[in-house]
Amino acid sequence: MPRSHGSDIDTLIQLLAKLPGLGPRSARRSALQLLKKRESVMVPLADALKRVGNSMIICPICCNIDTTDPCHVCVDHRRDQTMICVVEDVSDLWALDRSETFKGLYHVIGGTLSALDGIGPDDLNIAGLLERVTSGSIKEVILALNATVDGQTTSHYVADRLSAYDVKVTALAHGVPVGGELDYLDDGTLAAALRARSSV
Amino acid sequence: MPRSHGSDIDTLIQLLAKLPGLGPRSARRSALQLLKKRESVMVPLADALKRVGNSMIICPICCNIDTTDPCHVCVDHRRDQTMICVVEDVSDLWALDRSETFKGLYHVIGGTLSALDGIGPDDLNIAGLLERVTSGSIKEVILALNATVDGQTTSHYVADRLSAYDVKVTALAHGVPVGGELDYLDDGTLAAALRARSSV
Repeated sequence: MPRSHGSDIDTLIQLLAKLPGLGPRSARRSALQLLKKRESVMVPLADALKRVGNSMIICPICCNIDTTDPCHVCVDHRRDQTMICVVEDVSDLWALDRSETFKGLYHVIGGTLSALDGIGPDDLNIAGLLERVTSGSIKEVILALNATVDGQTTSHYVADRLSAYDVKVTALAHGVPVGGELDYLDDGTLAAALRARSSV
Repeated sequence: MPRSHGSDIDTLIQLLAKLPGLGPRSARRSALQLLKKRESVMVPLADALKRVGNSMIICPICCNIDTTDPCHVCVDHRRDQTMICVVEDVSDLWALDRSETFKGLYHVIGGTLSALDGIGPDDLNIAGLLERVTSGSIKEVILALNATVDGQTTSHYVADRLSAYDVKVTALAHGVPVGGELDYLDDGTLAAALRARSSV
């Protein structure tokens, strides 16, 4: 096969292709873009990767990924220390926090129960959650797992385990997404929205 | 604004968002993917960026981007040293070379003439091409600029300049793309395909 560039550039393209959303073609485009913007993007990106790679930790309290130990959320004393929002993944934590509507603490359990994939309660960070609830000041746990079958199964399981503790357990509301059109929604969402209807 | 992660991670996300095809959302997903695959992707990617960033050069002969000087194409003596394929951009060079149908040399002129953007002949690497043609062994120059108005204008200009030299000048054929449906093609392409029809 003819080679139009060296193996270092090949390696770079292959590594970029491992990022979500980048296929082989866009990885090549990205590599070329990086090569053309050496000073403004390539060198800073290499530095940022090195720095984050060296300093990243998994928060021992909530399992968020961050560069400080404990993470920015857990050390922020302006946050409501009596509420914990339970999420599946770090991406969910970041998404909820971007919405700026919840000012309490988080807990990442790291997945969902799944008989098919052989993931049981011990594979998730549920013990850590119970420990935080036991240790004191928590008044409410909000279950914000995904509205999938596995997510809801896990939600029920966690709620069940929490029932032994003196803590209020709530879950995100189901209903019509803001901006959503009824015609495009599935029956389950419509049924949930009807059941949870409120007076205006 | 509440912060769920440190500024180093923010910097990483912002730099990833500068890659083509990655918006703010996919940049966040990519950053998280990198954080979760520290050893297998993040560290190797940082190393590859550093390595390529340090060793990259623009080939003094053909203007390809590579990590060796001259580039892999120009030093490959199995290639036909009598043919030069003229392309707009390094990405075009890589694309043509991947197709493995052309085994000659390349020349990147680095753009197209454009009155609107104020790009004249002196802004393109045309002098370098003429120099290569003058210096000897080149028998054919294939113009493989994009089939856009600017690309074709540039193609005509380069052909005109080359007419003073003892060298055959050819251009890529226009026609129906392989696998293309006539119904979806523009009139210009159909007219070109009709004009260039061949007997079967």
